[in-house]
Amino acid sequence: MKKTTLLINCPDKKGIIATVTNFILAKKGNTVYIEQHVDRELGEFFMRLDCEFDHDEEKLALFKESFNEHVAKNYNMHWELYNAEKLPKLALFVSKYDHCLYDILGRYASGELKVKIPIIISNHRDLESIANAFNIPFKHIPVSKGNKKEAETEQLKTLKEHKIDFIVLARYMQILSANFVDQYPHKIINIHHSFLPAFPGAKPYHSAYERGVKIIGATSHYVTSDLDEGPIIEQEIVRVSHIHNVQDFILKGRDLEKIVLSRAIKHHIERKVLVYNNKTVIFS
Amino acid sequence: MKKTTLLINCPDKKGIIATVTNFILAKKGNTVYIEQHVDRELGEFFMRLDCEFDHDEEKLALFKESFNEHVAKNYNMHWELYNAEKLPKLALFVSKYDHCLYDILGRYASGELKVKIPIIISNHRDLESIANAFNIPFKHIPVSKGNKKEAETEQLKTLKEHKIDFIVLARYMQILSANFVDQYPHKIINIHHSFLPAFPGAKPYHSAYERGVKIIGATSHYVTSDLDEGPIIEQEIVRVSHIHNVQDFILKGRDLEKIVLSRAIKHHIERKVLVYNNKTVIFS
Amino acid sequence: MKKTTLLINCPDKKGIIATVTNFILAKKGNTVYIEQHVDRELGEFFMRLDCEFDHDEEKLALFKESFNEHVAKNYNMHWELYNAEKLPKLALFVSKYDHCLYDILGRYASGELKVKIPIIISNHRDLESIANAFNIPFKHIPVSKGNKKEAETEQLKTLKEHKIDFIVLARYMQILSANFVDQYPHKIINIHHSFLPAFPGAKPYHSAYERGVKIIGATSHYVTSDLDEGPIIEQEIVRVSHIHNVQDFILKGRDLEKIVLSRAIKHHIERKVLVYNNKTVIFS
Amino acid sequence: MKKTTLLINCPDKKGIIATVTNFILAKKGNTVYIEQHVDRELGEFFMRLDCEFDHDEEKLALFKESFNEHVAKNYNMHWELYNAEKLPKLALFVSKYDHCLYDILGRYASGELKVKIPIIISNHRDLESIANAFNIPFKHIPVSKGNKKEAETEQLKTLKEHKIDFIVLARYMQILSANFVDQYPHKIINIHHSFLPAFPGAKPYHSAYERGVKIIGATSHYVTSDLDEGPIIEQEIVRVSHIHNVQDFILKGRDLEKIVLSRAIKHHIERKVLVYNNKTVIFS
Repeated sequence: MKKTTLLINCPDKKGIIATVTNFILAKKGNTVYIEQHVDRELGEFFMRLDCEFDHDEEKLALFKESFNEHVAKNYNMHWELYNAEKLPKLALFVSKYDHCLYDILGRYASGELKVKIPIIISNHRDLESIANAFNIPFKHIPVSKGNKKEAETEQLKTLKEHKIDFIVLARYMQILSANFVDQYPHKIINIHHSFLPAFPGAKPYHSAYERGVKIIGATSHYVTSDLDEGPIIEQEIVRVSHIHNVQDFILKGRDLEKIVLSRAIKHHIERKVLVYNNKTVIFS
Repeated sequence: MKKTTLLINCPDKKGIIATVTNFILAKKGNTVYIEQHVDRELGEFFMRLDCEFDHDEEKLALFKESFNEHVAKNYNMHWELYNAEKLPKLALFVSKYDHCLYDILGRYASGELKVKIPIIISNHRDLESIANAFNIPFKHIPVSKGNKKEAETEQLKTLKEHKIDFIVLARYMQILSANFVDQYPHKIINIHHSFLPAFPGAKPYHSAYERGVKIIGATSHYVTSDLDEGPIIEQEIVRVSHIHNVQDFILKGRDLEKIVLSRAIKHHIERKVLVYNNKTVIFS
Repeated sequence: MKKTTLLINCPDKKGIIATVTNFILAKKGNTVYIEQHVDRELGEFFMRLDCEFDHDEEKLALFKESFNEHVAKNYNMHWELYNAEKLPKLALFVSKYDHCLYDILGRYASGELKVKIPIIISNHRDLESIANAFNIPFKHIPVSKGNKKEAETEQLKTLKEHKIDFIVLARYMQILSANFVDQYPHKIINIHHSFLPAFPGAKPYHSAYERGVKIIGATSHYVTSDLDEGPIIEQEIVRVSHIHNVQDFILKGRDLEKIVLSRAIKHHIERKVLVYNNKTVIFS
Repeated sequence: MKKTTLLINCPDKKGIIATVTNFILAKKGNTVYIEQHVDRELGEFFMRLDCEFDHDEEKLALFKESFNEHVAKNYNMHWELYNAEKLPKLALFVSKYDHCLYDILGRYASGELKVKIPIIISNHRDLESIANAFNIPFKHIPVSKGNKKEAETEQLKTLKEHKIDFIVLARYMQILSANFVDQYPHKIINIHHSFLPAFPGAKPYHSAYERGVKIIGATSHYVTSDLDEGPIIEQEIVRVSHIHNVQDFILKGRDLEKIVLSRAIKHHIERKVLVYNNKTVIFS
């Protein structure tokens, strides 16, 4: 039984649900689970649908062709069909901070994250031993002011070689160029260590401390060419008080960063995120 | 355009969604929103469906008959169809605590709660002036050890007179008899001032203080004949520490009680709760 | 037994605690509770001290004089001594939103807020009936573009007449002039309906919706002449998702606003707030 | 400059703070930070005091003797003085679950936990490779029904050899005997995977799922001879809903367990926990 996930968005109209579920039924598929959202303000319809087929790859390709022809076109749909049994390939980008890396690899090793991690890429060698401890290839690609373009070229080459599906910046301290980002639209997940849009940019814990907030947060989002402005996937917060200094903020924030980033990774892996209008629909 | 909400649960089977949405389409209805859940362990299917019809009451009655005959029976469905435009009628039961009452009536007065409140029933006169300030009839039905049966008879009579759809015990300090409860199955909402199943019974804040917990909670649930054992609708918590005494717990708890109870009332009003196996499915 | 609260801040130095507690002991006072904070970065010392005296008002005045002469001067202290048994006088400023007003008056009526409320001032008449229901004088002072200065003059006169100690802007939709604010430094509490510094200014729920955040918040702060920039007293948040529209944000936010504002009021009443460097120390 | 932490509890009386701070001042110490709590119901006084001395070990021993003679006895104090510069020694007990172990070792490796970990003890070999990766000695002491007493004897011997100060049961799936526990009173920290006192005993996530709660929790506590009844150090919660099955509860719970356990370890290391009456005072 081939499990697939269908993600759709299109202008809202009467009868979409019936049309799609009927079509699947007619093609001998079984709709197992459906989730749907309508943004009334924008008149946009969103749907995530788990369905099962007895098809082999070839018949599935035919189904996709037919679906596009007989359903998607009529409704002006953006749509994607994922084979839920195929693990997506993730490349981790890190620099020197290890807490997110430990957290992701711990979840990966225990089988919690249904993903393959063929490569860890870093601009520093500091975390190489961690990669080794988890038996994951580590590639050191130094980045400096002068070589940024070459470095990105090498990063991109490495990503292609490993057929990477999506990238996670696990406290990777470099800004990616628009050219890089454009090649992985809504496929690069970043963790920002503040409750965006409060405290964008560098040193958000320092800014939060300076402002005297009573709550700090972390935000995972897809990277777009506008820094810290991409669609937010997940946020979480923790209380602070006057007794905490910047260092305390940073320590408390680390726990947030780990959790918020791993939640975002899971949502992405399970195809539960649909981006529209620079926002995310997160199916449950 | 008549807005209706259809709530269904039945044994899980292939094709339910397609069947139901097709049937509605065939009857000239429009499925606006669908939410669904499958409990795989129990093999049970749950669905909430918003749909719109151009029908008058008579045609809607015919639809229901036809739906029952051609769809519901085949799938062994439990189902209910609500006219979403008709406000349900709520009776409030109170005793002496005023914070939940103030909160509910404030939300009612501001239009936040889409409900009618034809009557407030109490075993004490203490809160009568609040009912008056909000122009809601107040009925004093004293309850004592000796007259409990008579009191319930009078309460039930009052409920029938006002065609009450559901009851909210807003810190009503009396236990209802099994006979009473049976007449409003999953139609009586209670607020318990603890994070159930911790600290059932009386004086939960005292027990929580005694145990030295770091978090206290409140729980709203449907009343069943097993005290504090009914299906949980909503819970919320707040942190406490050694600096708080029992009185602080009670004060902090009040804010929880208000919020947890009002959320449960809203879920119920919007037909977002399906009870099964002593648990609730809460549609979003 | 006269209960007093002593609030101190001064440059950090050796021996402050011993000096102060000794002085109180020598003056036949009893230090019941002490709380302290040191901001190491700024080298500033903060202390809140509950102490009890058998003194009448006259002897207490002598104590204050002596404390100033023999302790405070040596340490360059800012300090205040409050008679904890005297209820502070609060003026409420409101416009048209009623939820914060209901909440505050409910807590006031139940005795939860240890405060006197001699007057409610509003630029509209909409909430007058609520003031009446709680038997609190209501003063309507219309504010328009042309009469702002005169209106503030009348507001200030009213505040003086009632010997108001502090002001709460319970969703009062007007901006106070710098002149007004200067007369009540750190004595005016505002509730802003966002997680500041995210979304300052007007319509924060709309901005939050627009940005697609997954968490919204509310912030209570002292009003300074810089709009939305005053010292933060308390913040709280609630999760939202793609299923919520702006109206849902507003409804969820209301519950936050009530809670965050009432917590700030309580902190202020209990003399638990010390402002320094545009931040607050909140003693527990 | 020798940093020390003084923890005191005794019956509440006038003048304790002044007496203690004076005594330290007289002995050329500097009270840097003081925190205090009074349980009015029990009439008990609690204090945590950071102070600095220029003393060597010998003079510090004299100070302790003198403090006991001239201060502690008069007030019937329980007290302890810790050298804050000496890292306490922690033994980790684990079985097969790795998430808490990864988390603790990650924090340890990054320097976040100010502690020495001379030994990891386990009844299984499953996690040995993790211990190796972090270069920490791993001792396998199998436990079976028949050999429990011998196993504990060996565990205790190992603990003595390494001069262990406190023990953390990082999802160690065995129950310790009363004899074992008595040798480390309030020195053994356990993580229980529920919001105690709800769902004590085995399989709490299953019980929570069964009951249909909307929030699950985790609890860290000191181990006493009454299973799951020891003084609670820290608790945290996360929301769940009908869409989550037992496996989801377990996964979400893991994140809680890690955080709640590490917070408890930090409190303990920083001497911020005072146990009294089977509850904890947690200084900030």
